[in-house]
Amino acid sequence: MKKIAIIGAGNVGKVLGYSLKNKGYQIIASFSRTEKARQVAAKLFDCPVFSKPEEAVENADIVFLTTPDQAIKEVCDCIAVNKGFTKNQVVLHASGAHSSEILLSARKQGAGTLSLHPLQTFPELEAGLRSLPGTFFAVEGDEDVFGVAAEMVQALGGQMLSIPTDMKVIYHAAACVACNYLTSLMDMALKMYGLMEIPPKKAFESLSPLIYSTLNNIGKLGPEKALTGPVSRGDLTTINSHLEALTKHAPELLSLYKLLGSYTVNLAIDKGTLDREQVEKLNTLLGGKE
Amino acid sequence: MKKIAIIGAGNVGKVLGYSLKNKGYQIIASFSRTEKARQVAAKLFDCPVFSKPEEAVENADIVFLTTPDQAIKEVCDCIAVNKGFTKNQVVLHASGAHSSEILLSARKQGAGTLSLHPLQTFPELEAGLRSLPGTFFAVEGDEDVFGVAAEMVQALGGQMLSIPTDMKVIYHAAACVACNYLTSLMDMALKMYGLMEIPPKKAFESLSPLIYSTLNNIGKLGPEKALTGPVSRGDLTTINSHLEALTKHAPELLSLYKLLGSYTVNLAIDKGTLDREQVEKLNTLLGGKE
Repeated sequence: MKKIAIIGAGNVGKVLGYSLKNKGYQIIASFSRTEKARQVAAKLFDCPVFSKPEEAVENADIVFLTTPDQAIKEVCDCIAVNKGFTKNQVVLHASGAHSSEILLSARKQGAGTLSLHPLQTFPELEAGLRSLPGTFFAVEGDEDVFGVAAEMVQALGGQMLSIPTDMKVIYHAAACVACNYLTSLMDMALKMYGLMEIPPKKAFESLSPLIYSTLNNIGKLGPEKALTGPVSRGDLTTINSHLEALTKHAPELLSLYKLLGSYTVNLAIDKGTLDREQVEKLNTLLGGKE
Repeated sequence: MKKIAIIGAGNVGKVLGYSLKNKGYQIIASFSRTEKARQVAAKLFDCPVFSKPEEAVENADIVFLTTPDQAIKEVCDCIAVNKGFTKNQVVLHASGAHSSEILLSARKQGAGTLSLHPLQTFPELEAGLRSLPGTFFAVEGDEDVFGVAAEMVQALGGQMLSIPTDMKVIYHAAACVACNYLTSLMDMALKMYGLMEIPPKKAFESLSPLIYSTLNNIGKLGPEKALTGPVSRGDLTTINSHLEALTKHAPELLSLYKLLGSYTVNLAIDKGTLDREQVEKLNTLLGGKE
């Protein structure tokens, strides 16, 4: 099996490196900046760990750059300056925010370059390992070496999602909406439950069946058809009562409630359940534009 | 078992009435405004269906008002005017938006009054029936007759969630955030995938493992600890690249992206991962206040 160097052993490096090792890839070397991280990596990967990245990549078929985002280019350039890359190597990073273009210095030495981003969160090692099967991996870069990424993704039990290089940032912003902003939206609902002195855990438990049904409906019917509730019915009385209650009990949530409401009006327009007068009145209430 | 009259046989009335009948409750009568709805109800509930609500409630132990929200008070008052309620009856409605207070006319005739709202969406009958087990039912009103609601909820395989009457509107607004606004948030992510010409179904499929992991983390750790991503890391470069890409490719999404980002800054402050300078710079980028 192919020989991999894991450059940077944070959460993503550990989860992906350890999983690839379990699936038969040979981790031949690793690099970490701190002594503590080097000890962890040595134990986890059972391989030599270097304090200079150019030493770790020697003899590797695949160089996997899993450092923090802001260090990827720097580490790649450092290896290139030390003539560390060869034309038979595939160099890839696992950042969602950056495209393969930040690996230009490796490309100039003849290596194939890719970005390969697991569309998943890795709060901790064990949960991360469990969450890999079924995860999609966004890939972009040198199409000549897509096969190397496809093999890795298959070994990890994931699926490939090919995206255009110039839209990598949009891809990442969408993932942040679906993950981080989802967390914020849930926090908003839980804070409202907090006004009734229902603790967050109980609140989330009681909302969960509704949340999972909603996601199930979105998956099956798409967002337009899955949309229910007062905005989609043009129920101005209910929306108005929500606004009054928030003004009284949680004015700090009002602006976000209204802007999400305005967005929802547009979704309801696409759904086709509102007439022109309802749209006008909803937009007046929610502060949206027609 | 107790005798129930189902007043109004829309989706919620059909799902709850049919399920209660299957669990041994006796549906003795139903009311619907239109001939077509009366035919559907007669077949589903196998009971007499009336065109005057006061005729349907005679001999019922439980009067379940499942009309559209705006008709509940009107129908209740109509029954009361016709002296239809008795002091042995429990009268309840299934609206999320209203409290039991709109059943005042029934209460004045001695009936116990409650609101009992299933925290669930019912897009269609069969999916609705499947989704009932595990669903929470928010109850408020006459505490003397809570037992009647508790029995019904238990029969349906659900769980009770007691809420304060004066916070019913906040409860409902929170449910709309967790359901309707969740649909809007997902639509936003799918529209961004649309910019990469990834169709909505494929986009939702690829985001699903991330979405479900995120919800799992929220349930286990709470929103603060579950929060990951560029805002929580204070990664200004990435947030700035998102804003530039949205300005270029989808300026109509920018205001909602920024306001959700501002909310997320506050969540990250609670999480404790940002220093003062990062908070200031994020707020400047996202247009939030300190």
